[in-house]
Amino acid sequence: MTRIGILLFDGVEELDAVGPWEILGMWAHRHPQEAQVVAFADRPGPIRGAKGLQFLVEHGKDDVGPLDVLVHPGGSGIRPLLKSREHLEWLRSCSEQTGLMTSVCTGALVFAAAGLLLGRPATTHWMSLDLLTEVDPTVVVRYEHRFVDDGNIITSAGVSAGIDMALHLVKRLASPERAKEIRLSVQYDPEPPV
Amino acid sequence: MTRIGILLFDGVEELDAVGPWEILGMWAHRHPQEAQVVAFADRPGPIRGAKGLQFLVEHGKDDVGPLDVLVHPGGSGIRPLLKSREHLEWLRSCSEQTGLMTSVCTGALVFAAAGLLLGRPATTHWMSLDLLTEVDPTVVVRYEHRFVDDGNIITSAGVSAGIDMALHLVKRLASPERAKEIRLSVQYDPEPPV
Repeated sequence: MTRIGILLFDGVEELDAVGPWEILGMWAHRHPQEAQVVAFADRPGPIRGAKGLQFLVEHGKDDVGPLDVLVHPGGSGIRPLLKSREHLEWLRSCSEQTGLMTSVCTGALVFAAAGLLLGRPATTHWMSLDLLTEVDPTVVVRYEHRFVDDGNIITSAGVSAGIDMALHLVKRLASPERAKEIRLSVQYDPEPPV
Repeated sequence: MTRIGILLFDGVEELDAVGPWEILGMWAHRHPQEAQVVAFADRPGPIRGAKGLQFLVEHGKDDVGPLDVLVHPGGSGIRPLLKSREHLEWLRSCSEQTGLMTSVCTGALVFAAAGLLLGRPATTHWMSLDLLTEVDPTVVVRYEHRFVDDGNIITSAGVSAGIDMALHLVKRLASPERAKEIRLSVQYDPEPPV
């Protein structure tokens, strides 16, 4: 049983969080013996996304319980997190207890600010790739990757890339067949019309 | 200014709603003079998605105000809606006042139950295509389409197809250039890993 926590915070980019939520939640829904997914925030209560959608979060960091995987989305709300000693401390301690730290979009900047990406390959939203090396010049930026799996840390490109990263998670933690099943369930045969 | 309402209800499939929310919300965020997006439900308050994510909705049907576009997601929560005389009545009256009715996934079944798809081409989640013709045998089912634009009604395939449909909306209501800009903003260069 893999226990996955998706972190929400004010200013979280909605699809950064809900893309992985849908993929991983579908996995947990269809195979509850394999995975469990929980959304959590600093503390329980309302959270407002970067585009104004409100979530009602039931769990805080204190009561979310042990996690095997953390999903850290991005969004304009990361700006205060980059400077929050408390959040960066929490991330470091989380990385010691959680087997797998994953980020979507500018979530990677917060990982970098916490010192989690020292000398490691990573990616982020294409508009923030330069900022990633500003936050930590030792990061080996992968410009062309949809996501970068570096063992116990996976970082993704911008917003919608979290969907691909989450499918990769299902593939890695369960099997390619399971990931294909989830892909079919959400009919993920993208055809961008422009 | 295009005013777009995204309907939430208990059992809404999370990505059905948040895929279009992200695309259309990004459009409204970058060009507030062109579009406004609002989430609403039967009445204000908490809404629980099909995979357990909770939303806190600020507007109800009564106070959402006039809409130019409705987005009706799907999800397991459509089952009671298919039999709700009140909801189907509301949809019919909404279709008279709203220029453009759009659905994602099994939202098309609710449109069909309301009689909005009589003799018209439409699509839905691939697992519900047969059910769509059961609900209304006159629907001309488009099996191979990501979304079907039939003028004042657009229906989409399953879950993730709402992202493509929403980009098409931006293209149709603004311009292909605007849709490309939004696609770039959410880095929508999908690469399913399975």
